[in-house]
Amino acid sequence: MRIVAVILAGGRGERFWPLSRRSRPKQFLPLVGDRSMLGGTLERLDGLVDPRDRWILTASDLKKEAERLAPGVSPSRIIGEPVGKNTAPAIGLVSWWLQDEGKDVAVAVLPSDHRVEPASRFQKELRQAAQVALTRQAIVTFGVPPTRPETGYGYIEQGDALEPGSPFHFVRAFREKPDAATAEGYLAGGRHLWNAGMFVFPPSVMLRELEAHEPRITDLLARVPRHGDLSALAALEQYYEKAPSVSIDYAVMERSERAIVARAEFAWDDLGSWESMDSKDARDGSGNVVRGEAVLQGCENVIAYADGGLIAGVGLEDLVVVRTGDVTLVCHRAHLQQIRGIVERLKSRKDLGGYL
Amino acid sequence: MRIVAVILAGGRGERFWPLSRRSRPKQFLPLVGDRSMLGGTLERLDGLVDPRDRWILTASDLKKEAERLAPGVSPSRIIGEPVGKNTAPAIGLVSWWLQDEGKDVAVAVLPSDHRVEPASRFQKELRQAAQVALTRQAIVTFGVPPTRPETGYGYIEQGDALEPGSPFHFVRAFREKPDAATAEGYLAGGRHLWNAGMFVFPPSVMLRELEAHEPRITDLLARVPRHGDLSALAALEQYYEKAPSVSIDYAVMERSERAIVARAEFAWDDLGSWESMDSKDARDGSGNVVRGEAVLQGCENVIAYADGGLIAGVGLEDLVVVRTGDVTLVCHRAHLQQIRGIVERLKSRKDLGGYL
Repeated sequence: MRIVAVILAGGRGERFWPLSRRSRPKQFLPLVGDRSMLGGTLERLDGLVDPRDRWILTASDLKKEAERLAPGVSPSRIIGEPVGKNTAPAIGLVSWWLQDEGKDVAVAVLPSDHRVEPASRFQKELRQAAQVALTRQAIVTFGVPPTRPETGYGYIEQGDALEPGSPFHFVRAFREKPDAATAEGYLAGGRHLWNAGMFVFPPSVMLRELEAHEPRITDLLARVPRHGDLSALAALEQYYEKAPSVSIDYAVMERSERAIVARAEFAWDDLGSWESMDSKDARDGSGNVVRGEAVLQGCENVIAYADGGLIAGVGLEDLVVVRTGDVTLVCHRAHLQQIRGIVERLKSRKDLGGYL
Repeated sequence: MRIVAVILAGGRGERFWPLSRRSRPKQFLPLVGDRSMLGGTLERLDGLVDPRDRWILTASDLKKEAERLAPGVSPSRIIGEPVGKNTAPAIGLVSWWLQDEGKDVAVAVLPSDHRVEPASRFQKELRQAAQVALTRQAIVTFGVPPTRPETGYGYIEQGDALEPGSPFHFVRAFREKPDAATAEGYLAGGRHLWNAGMFVFPPSVMLRELEAHEPRITDLLARVPRHGDLSALAALEQYYEKAPSVSIDYAVMERSERAIVARAEFAWDDLGSWESMDSKDARDGSGNVVRGEAVLQGCENVIAYADGGLIAGVGLEDLVVVRTGDVTLVCHRAHLQQIRGIVERLKSRKDLGGYL
């Protein structure tokens, strides 16, 4: 068995604006420890995935920085997408390129900007998932047992276990982000798992499922030459130009009968917003969380993140304050989802576009 | 009649931190229009006070910057105090130096960091005050009729008018900053005026009153040589070292029978805190006040001041957000007085002292 890792690093991380910027998205930031999220994702594979079997898919304008942060990965396997078209076209493309690598190859598609720990447990579960994917000719995804009624994640509803006591289950359904009451029900029920956005599969299986459920992509792939071909660049441009923008969940997972979900036992967090900076460990006696230099006076439940410089807070409650480069963000914790709205407003204002 | 202006520019403006810093206090900042407060204070005297009759008292480490911002003032008349000892020693000193300038000289002591407008009305009232000071051999101070129950100012309680209908009144009492109920009473009563911290007097009168009420200062002055004397610098050091730290209000005004208050008709604001950035004119439909670049979403009654860079606010209420240089301050408007507490904390922490 051989695991080929495909790391998705094309996101813009707008919910982490202004720390994440267009040219420095979330996966390039050291949100956990001192290493970039991308670097941490690669390091987590050491000993399990050969450096020559690591691929990174990112945006074309981010390719150079990805190369810098992933010195062990061959630049030829760091693919700069000319335009982002969600996950299905990207996963289709690498499956296409890897389809003849051999019957013992399992592709593991992994996000580049999630917190996953410890690495040892993750590796063990990923190896098992690859074995199941190869044995069953299936697409295995990871579902994380919820620990809170999170409304910001999608869920996977598990069906029967493959065998009694196995962590691998058939998939009953994929569920969109729920409302609060539904999320409470999911948490209480025990059958709904957070969708961690990881997929393990033999490339041929993925191509067959794409052909069955989203043939627009496989039709386009038929014209894409093998990886490394000199004509590849122009062909890639055409492929991405024409490919439908659709997620692999929607295109394949929700429709496929080959979907299997593994109940994950590693700790996982998608670090989807500033709220995920908060944890019991990090809090001071007033519930404040500080990274960088900050002086807080009479503040409660404040997250202060100073990436250089000083934050001074007086008499604040339930706020996120971020100071980075030339931008300061102050956001009520109940309104963190609206940070994207700020990013949209900046996009619409040419005079402020430099702050994106 | 000749008016000699003495501008007090030694403050540290800690309530405007972090915009004001130790090396760039409030009087050096362009808080009103594009000119420094000190520059505006000087310009307001054009046509009334000869450039050679302008003095500036500041801290010794601020002298160079004061010279830069006051190019029309002779550097020999920009006095760098070796140590700040409040207003009485400073006013005593210039009175000492100016006592032989002639019987038609009135000294006008003026703060350097207040908003005063329009200049034409201010000049008219200052000229009248100088005439009254010379005629009556009095110390004339300005009282501003309050427009709100301000608890952040000291008050002057007026007595009888010098003549029926005159804006000049005898002083009944000086009042410390009142509590809210007292301030409401002052506002309703009509006899209490904001103490604007301006004083107009013949220098000999000030010296006599100091001698009567705070002779420690006049005793020390007896050893200070004339201005311009080569030995002045060492003498100044000694004077400031030994002088008591006391305000002119406390040392003289509250005790003198020569105090007269002029009801001011110019608009005045001491710009004593971020709150004074707020005014009906400046507000948007949600009561927000913005200076510099800011994007506010779902915010109410927010003051956003970006001195370079961008402030983004989401879902905020009743906050002041200041972004300047390497510091961001976020302060609830009910706690603006505590900014000084932050400054004190920074003073006590060597690692953060650079942010002062």
